[in-house]
Amino acid sequence: MSGSTFGLLFRVTNFGESHGPAIGCVVDGCPPGMALSEADIQPDLDRRRPGTSRHVTQRSEADQVEILSGVYEGRTTGTPIALLIRNTDQRSRDYGNILDTFRPGHADYTYHHKYGLRDPRGGGRSSARLTAPTVAAGAIAKKWLRERHGTTFAGHLSQLGEIVVPFESQEHVPNNPFFAANATDIPRLEAYMDQLRREGDSCGARIDVIARGVPVGLGEPLYDKLDADIAYAMMGVNAVKGVEIGAGFAAVAERGSVHGDELTPEGFAANRSGGVLGGISTGQDITVSLAIKPTSSIRTPRRSVDRAGAPTTVETFGRHDPCVGIRATPIAEALLALVLMDHALRQRAQCGDVSLPVGPIPAQAPPSA
Amino acid sequence: MSGSTFGLLFRVTNFGESHGPAIGCVVDGCPPGMALSEADIQPDLDRRRPGTSRHVTQRSEADQVEILSGVYEGRTTGTPIALLIRNTDQRSRDYGNILDTFRPGHADYTYHHKYGLRDPRGGGRSSARLTAPTVAAGAIAKKWLRERHGTTFAGHLSQLGEIVVPFESQEHVPNNPFFAANATDIPRLEAYMDQLRREGDSCGARIDVIARGVPVGLGEPLYDKLDADIAYAMMGVNAVKGVEIGAGFAAVAERGSVHGDELTPEGFAANRSGGVLGGISTGQDITVSLAIKPTSSIRTPRRSVDRAGAPTTVETFGRHDPCVGIRATPIAEALLALVLMDHALRQRAQCGDVSLPVGPIPAQAPPSA
Amino acid sequence: MSGSTFGLLFRVTNFGESHGPAIGCVVDGCPPGMALSEADIQPDLDRRRPGTSRHVTQRSEADQVEILSGVYEGRTTGTPIALLIRNTDQRSRDYGNILDTFRPGHADYTYHHKYGLRDPRGGGRSSARLTAPTVAAGAIAKKWLRERHGTTFAGHLSQLGEIVVPFESQEHVPNNPFFAANATDIPRLEAYMDQLRREGDSCGARIDVIARGVPVGLGEPLYDKLDADIAYAMMGVNAVKGVEIGAGFAAVAERGSVHGDELTPEGFAANRSGGVLGGISTGQDITVSLAIKPTSSIRTPRRSVDRAGAPTTVETFGRHDPCVGIRATPIAEALLALVLMDHALRQRAQCGDVSLPVGPIPAQAPPSA
Amino acid sequence: MSGSTFGLLFRVTNFGESHGPAIGCVVDGCPPGMALSEADIQPDLDRRRPGTSRHVTQRSEADQVEILSGVYEGRTTGTPIALLIRNTDQRSRDYGNILDTFRPGHADYTYHHKYGLRDPRGGGRSSARLTAPTVAAGAIAKKWLRERHGTTFAGHLSQLGEIVVPFESQEHVPNNPFFAANATDIPRLEAYMDQLRREGDSCGARIDVIARGVPVGLGEPLYDKLDADIAYAMMGVNAVKGVEIGAGFAAVAERGSVHGDELTPEGFAANRSGGVLGGISTGQDITVSLAIKPTSSIRTPRRSVDRAGAPTTVETFGRHDPCVGIRATPIAEALLALVLMDHALRQRAQCGDVSLPVGPIPAQAPPSA
Repeated sequence: MSGSTFGLLFRVTNFGESHGPAIGCVVDGCPPGMALSEADIQPDLDRRRPGTSRHVTQRSEADQVEILSGVYEGRTTGTPIALLIRNTDQRSRDYGNILDTFRPGHADYTYHHKYGLRDPRGGGRSSARLTAPTVAAGAIAKKWLRERHGTTFAGHLSQLGEIVVPFESQEHVPNNPFFAANATDIPRLEAYMDQLRREGDSCGARIDVIARGVPVGLGEPLYDKLDADIAYAMMGVNAVKGVEIGAGFAAVAERGSVHGDELTPEGFAANRSGGVLGGISTGQDITVSLAIKPTSSIRTPRRSVDRAGAPTTVETFGRHDPCVGIRATPIAEALLALVLMDHALRQRAQCGDVSLPVGPIPAQAPPSA
Repeated sequence: MSGSTFGLLFRVTNFGESHGPAIGCVVDGCPPGMALSEADIQPDLDRRRPGTSRHVTQRSEADQVEILSGVYEGRTTGTPIALLIRNTDQRSRDYGNILDTFRPGHADYTYHHKYGLRDPRGGGRSSARLTAPTVAAGAIAKKWLRERHGTTFAGHLSQLGEIVVPFESQEHVPNNPFFAANATDIPRLEAYMDQLRREGDSCGARIDVIARGVPVGLGEPLYDKLDADIAYAMMGVNAVKGVEIGAGFAAVAERGSVHGDELTPEGFAANRSGGVLGGISTGQDITVSLAIKPTSSIRTPRRSVDRAGAPTTVETFGRHDPCVGIRATPIAEALLALVLMDHALRQRAQCGDVSLPVGPIPAQAPPSA
Repeated sequence: MSGSTFGLLFRVTNFGESHGPAIGCVVDGCPPGMALSEADIQPDLDRRRPGTSRHVTQRSEADQVEILSGVYEGRTTGTPIALLIRNTDQRSRDYGNILDTFRPGHADYTYHHKYGLRDPRGGGRSSARLTAPTVAAGAIAKKWLRERHGTTFAGHLSQLGEIVVPFESQEHVPNNPFFAANATDIPRLEAYMDQLRREGDSCGARIDVIARGVPVGLGEPLYDKLDADIAYAMMGVNAVKGVEIGAGFAAVAERGSVHGDELTPEGFAANRSGGVLGGISTGQDITVSLAIKPTSSIRTPRRSVDRAGAPTTVETFGRHDPCVGIRATPIAEALLALVLMDHALRQRAQCGDVSLPVGPIPAQAPPSA
Repeated sequence: MSGSTFGLLFRVTNFGESHGPAIGCVVDGCPPGMALSEADIQPDLDRRRPGTSRHVTQRSEADQVEILSGVYEGRTTGTPIALLIRNTDQRSRDYGNILDTFRPGHADYTYHHKYGLRDPRGGGRSSARLTAPTVAAGAIAKKWLRERHGTTFAGHLSQLGEIVVPFESQEHVPNNPFFAANATDIPRLEAYMDQLRREGDSCGARIDVIARGVPVGLGEPLYDKLDADIAYAMMGVNAVKGVEIGAGFAAVAERGSVHGDELTPEGFAANRSGGVLGGISTGQDITVSLAIKPTSSIRTPRRSVDRAGAPTTVETFGRHDPCVGIRATPIAEALLALVLMDHALRQRAQCGDVSLPVGPIPAQAPPSA
């Protein structure tokens, strides 16, 4: 199999190519009896959707989701939920040149050598467009976790290229095109993006995601640790090159006398662990960071080779998206939800719904909040 | 299931607790006909083994591996290879106190709340000792990859606490207790460790791992991307808090005109991708970094609570290990080998052994080499 | 997950309900480069389709399949192939009565107790209509196996109720509505069915399926034996109550001196094993039989209870289908193809494409051919 | 992977060869907190063990099980339970002849062609000895199901070669070497076996297994139906050629007006379904039958070929076991327990522990009881 299924018990099977007839996924394992309609899913798809500001790809797709199965009279039945998103932007184009060259930083080279052929239309299967079904499935997981455990998800952009974006308030996130938890610096970010666009260049981004209200005990001891599965999920997002949980790489230079979170009768005294100890959730906030590389499609000409190995030059024409990381926040939230959902069901399978008296050990707020 | 199996086609099922009768694993899916004996596995176990210098845990375990199945007359038969390592250090102790308190930074709290009970002997299942079977399985994967594809693995410590350790030569790695690719700074590292030990404190570490001679085309397009599976593997190692592939978090502040590796008739002009594009190996070196938090068991007293939620204090007596990261290099190598092995078999399943004419595109050396 | 995925490496994820908007599946793991279009799939769907004779359900569905992904310019790309079949017969009906009672022999009772709610429209997920995506996926597997290994599949009805149907020739199968490999007894079968319909009753059926040109070596030694996976596949077809491989239940009364197939320089002297020894294919024909119970929806009134446990009576009005087994032949063929396809890829993963010199040991024809 | 893992959530990974150093398994996913010791497992191993009567293989193995992990102070911890059985009968022998020829009815031919080499010692991996770890794992599943749901398992031999063995009482089963639920016919069975032994021949057997006190709702709607998973489990037992659930092949000739079990306020009026409807358990007894082929190792000379394809003759010297089916009863019970256990955990994952008010619908006794 070609790795298109995510999760063990809440299982999302993704299909589609950027410019084929449709993309979508099958969500298998959703508990029965939960109220669900397209209206629960569409808002997250709209958050991810391109074309919403001048800073992201101008491709205009409605990304309208259709539930094909698994829901009867407004409630999940326990059978697979198929979600379909028709591609409306399938115009035929001449992809001959793309098929013959390998764009630097893109998957052209690797797909060609893996499969011997590839679908070049809009990047085919390697397009970021394929995160849409993941976001749709994540919306179902978010709803179940919120209704059953009170779990919520909040992501934001914490760095854009060289610019660190201070956390001011989560409330700002929906009010700017960058998913920044910040109001002060937005003009500066816009100017930075405009300049990149003028220069025909691009930049990377850092995204922080937090889950609050996470049940204690999610994650497995050895290989399917909760943080391991989170790292798998996040590193699998297009263009991600690094993942941190809690203190992340800063932990390297920390002392043990500072790093290990002390416990008090009022709860954990800190959350440098990022809500995971020994691969299992502590009940504190889970905090994750991801590093996204700069967009590979830029107007600046770059060296490459064609399929015969002869040198050539590649440049991207027309408008482009100087930072793919801008749209990654809802994607990262969705994946964190999918991981927690899967482990919530796994925990229920092995240990039942028994929750031990945890006592007054509240989850500690993460450093950035 | 409790997440004790690693891989889809080269499948390692791990069992055991630190102070139980034995630890081990079952390796299912090894191709038949490969020469294999304990002598192929023991050297990597010896590299990981504690007690080899004054800078690591003084527990003295022989870690002698026994092959119980899957090998006949010195060759693998294609059936599961069971590996057994008897625990020789099982002395009975009074763990009453550990059972009643939650050591900061340890898995005590989460195991207790997940399962309602736990095996406290030496950390039970959460002990770093359980990486030994992973290392043993990794030795089998390394051998197959080396014999069939010429793939090799080389890891080293690149930072110890605050001290960045410059890469001088891979040849130095076996000659110091830190797995440093460096000869010049060893005295400084030793002094740093001795000081930490005197202070009853600990520090973190950064490990770099490189795979060379990797076949093109390993990894799946969407969810089981090669880098995603590597991140899963590495984040699952005890105490790891961050994982980077290629440029990692540095990619955030890079420009697209610099980051995307150009191609020339002589090969890739750089390797900021870390050998993975679109989740699939390029044939270049795969470069991975991991951040390891400071050892949680320290002599400095720390606040905690007991099972009733009442405040208490925890400190570790006797000798301890001021940096668990020191022994992580062979573990990280083993996991990288397991991921590549699994994907090599997956690639063979779907695409067969056909290798396309790649032309003169050699793998580029990683930045650190 | 709710068990909607079939296979490990050639993975079919099925979705949909009988009277929802659509049914379909995602086929993940198909090797790249195979020519594929709807025209390769539709013929098998048409064979399974109801409404083709007076002896099967008169529901008239076009069962038109649409390929949504995984194919570019007429060739598979190695990425998931999504197949969609829109339901054209979704007319709204009053299902109130069905929701309140449990039809004998149907899944109403078990779905209700498993999930606490169910989709009653046309049987919902338990409808035999959900075998259509399986048949569509099977057509892809059949094509790959035929092109690569020369494997072919041939099924037929060997018993209808009390009437044993002698095997005359496989050529007769497409020429009668029963999938009988027989021309002589067709009038007798038609009369039998007409009588059942008049009586408002139903009967069972026995189906035989044969795969020819099967590669040697498919199947795993212990748990995923080829015959075990075939039994899983066949017993999972709606209404199946028994599965046999080779001699089947007749083997109970056989002597070892007769049963074990001898080998000669010209090949196996018999095929009582059904083409599987020790769970692994011998290269002989694989022969499978399945027993299908009589249709549960009959006009004869039957006792049941409602959701409150009070006694009631259930009968099916309108036309019905006196033998669901009639349409099972293409379904069984498809499932046998899916099992062989999955194991062909598994074999390739572990053992590569190396085929040993088998010598002059041809596959033996099965007893019925 | 080579198919050595059984189950999704209660996962048994089996290893070992008949005459290697040891056999065993790793049981992953057992809920924590259950009392468990070797004494809970050994009795079922003793029931399966050879050498207990003159009618079974005289190989004398103690089959002493050792728990290596997953249990602390007499209770399961939720981590993997490794079970080890040392082989005591490993005497070195000359297997040269077996390596060069293919014994009719054995796996020699298929292992050789699958792997290119094989372990011939006592049949290696294909030996019935490898059912011992399955039986051990099944004992754990049986205990959990009995303690939590009151589920019990009862198997018996219902046919030995041509001799149908009437069901008299389950109490007789432990009192004869055949697992017959019968006291009257034992002398006749003994005489039959003695005659086979004198003739150097063998016979098959039919085994019936029943699970009582099964929770309603186990099994998945489409592919992982409970009966499909049971068929997979049973057909995977060495020498099994057929599996039936409930009415089995008799359903072919039944009328719908008879077959479908009616419901009354007192419960199901019959159990021709074998306790499964639509792939999901009804709460009635689950009834399974399996057909076992005659032992392939017989003293009667049989034709075969050597590895070069030249004709040769094979016969088994010394004492042998004229009916492998005799020892299959505890194996079939164990597998049925493993399937139910896995589905009990799956049901808990997706639907929680909520059990709906079933009303006065008791499970119906099976036909044979």
